[in-house]
Amino acid sequence: MPVTTRTILNLDQYLDGIRERVQAHLEEMLPTTSELAPELIEAIRYSVLAPGKRLRPILAYATCEALRGDAHLALTPGCALELIHAYSLIHDDLPSMDDDDLRRGRATCHRAFGEATAILAGDALQPMAFELIAQAPGIAVDARIAMIATVAKAVGPHGMVGGQSLDLSSEGKQLTAARLEVLHRAKTGQLLRASVQVGALASGRADASALASLDRYGAALGLAFQVVDDILDVTGDVAVIGKTPGADQKAGKNTYPTLLTLDGARRKAEALLEQALEALEAFGPDAERLRKLAHFVVERDR
Amino acid sequence: MPVTTRTILNLDQYLDGIRERVQAHLEEMLPTTSELAPELIEAIRYSVLAPGKRLRPILAYATCEALRGDAHLALTPGCALELIHAYSLIHDDLPSMDDDDLRRGRATCHRAFGEATAILAGDALQPMAFELIAQAPGIAVDARIAMIATVAKAVGPHGMVGGQSLDLSSEGKQLTAARLEVLHRAKTGQLLRASVQVGALASGRADASALASLDRYGAALGLAFQVVDDILDVTGDVAVIGKTPGADQKAGKNTYPTLLTLDGARRKAEALLEQALEALEAFGPDAERLRKLAHFVVERDR
Repeated sequence: MPVTTRTILNLDQYLDGIRERVQAHLEEMLPTTSELAPELIEAIRYSVLAPGKRLRPILAYATCEALRGDAHLALTPGCALELIHAYSLIHDDLPSMDDDDLRRGRATCHRAFGEATAILAGDALQPMAFELIAQAPGIAVDARIAMIATVAKAVGPHGMVGGQSLDLSSEGKQLTAARLEVLHRAKTGQLLRASVQVGALASGRADASALASLDRYGAALGLAFQVVDDILDVTGDVAVIGKTPGADQKAGKNTYPTLLTLDGARRKAEALLEQALEALEAFGPDAERLRKLAHFVVERDR
Repeated sequence: MPVTTRTILNLDQYLDGIRERVQAHLEEMLPTTSELAPELIEAIRYSVLAPGKRLRPILAYATCEALRGDAHLALTPGCALELIHAYSLIHDDLPSMDDDDLRRGRATCHRAFGEATAILAGDALQPMAFELIAQAPGIAVDARIAMIATVAKAVGPHGMVGGQSLDLSSEGKQLTAARLEVLHRAKTGQLLRASVQVGALASGRADASALASLDRYGAALGLAFQVVDDILDVTGDVAVIGKTPGADQKAGKNTYPTLLTLDGARRKAEALLEQALEALEAFGPDAERLRKLAHFVVERDR
């Protein structure tokens, strides 16, 4: 089903269209079997192909489109972002980390396949992602290298993994709101921010000024996403959010609702939405989808 | 201390010279602190900077040199290979994997820093490695992309991680020697093989025929390395090998000595050494160091 800016105005239909493409791409690209380790492949497919929001590939796709690039080119690197996201969920859920039983409405990877296979599934997903970007068709080699450097930095010790480490070491301690922001910008924000950059690079049409504006958009949206995640942990329904509600509070995690109250957290999310929209001002109507996506991130119920 | 082909004929001095450079490069390149996660950085430095053979960067360096490339260019990608190797050791040692207490003569990472930090240290080292290669100075962008694709493939589900998965699922089961070879070629062999390719790519001077010959060298040497590792697990001294001897047998692992007898395993290593040397025939005296390295891999006592 083709997705074009002109024919579909409804955001849900647009998102569903991209999700279908991403799902088909992931299905096709993931190995189906392995002489070495069939269970590893099964665990990888189980985790990656579980229904998800696919927000990272969607951000890459929509950003590429906003710059009037060929959005189809963003699919392969977008799927790479989804593989990295899937790895991070598998490892975050491990017994020595957040010890979660439920993810995307199913048993977590280690509950379904055992701890060793879950660790290895995550370990394998990282190089699969970088290999995908390295060989992404139709994208100039300089843009591929820039994507790899951007994504690698976003998920390294000063990004996602550093944020997860800070998250674990902060359990049971009271953080300031400023410190919680540092944590979430690293843990969740940086990969979302990188997703926007990857989409911009895929377009081959972003100058330094556009990249900088889009980066402000990605940073605000990335933090907003986590604020809303924290809110949904309090207010969400297990059947809708697909994971155990209240798990953060139970684990003694610092969250925006506990630090700012639920209303304060909602105001924070609204302020970040405003920042994200402001960053898009220069793009005019081309960025309408990115604006709608920012609304979606803040107003979602899952 | 400069290392040049002309002035130093002794292999030990040559290896020590490269190791010093690699160590200095690693020291300089690794973060020393982090606002987010100081313990994570400490665990990374502890694991990476522990004394090691540095075989992967040495292979990259010596291969680049054998092709009359500027071997200094192989240092950054060589260090990236070492980061990936360090990550694989940290994760292999985890309680749900090989459950080892001792590595490189010290407490394993999870024994020193706890399981969550050890998992995250490994997780962070992977993107650090890819970021290093993406930004390696002095290397053409096409060569950097080819390195990333090669290394990513070597450590993915059909390479290192697939091999580790097969290793774990084979514990307590009797494998054929052919199947054990498949396991070791994936688990240990592929990254060593990729190290040779990375060195060749760094030189900017390898044609398809040279790459293919060097790949046969790397494949034979990579498997020989693991055969000898298995032998040292039986015959080695804890003070020399820096890990718990007999650990493989205790864990019910399939090893070459148990499948082929100790003598059979030694003959296998010798045959692989011959294969490695044959693959280098076309290179003449330029490949002398690579030949000595192959001897070193087979004749080492640690």
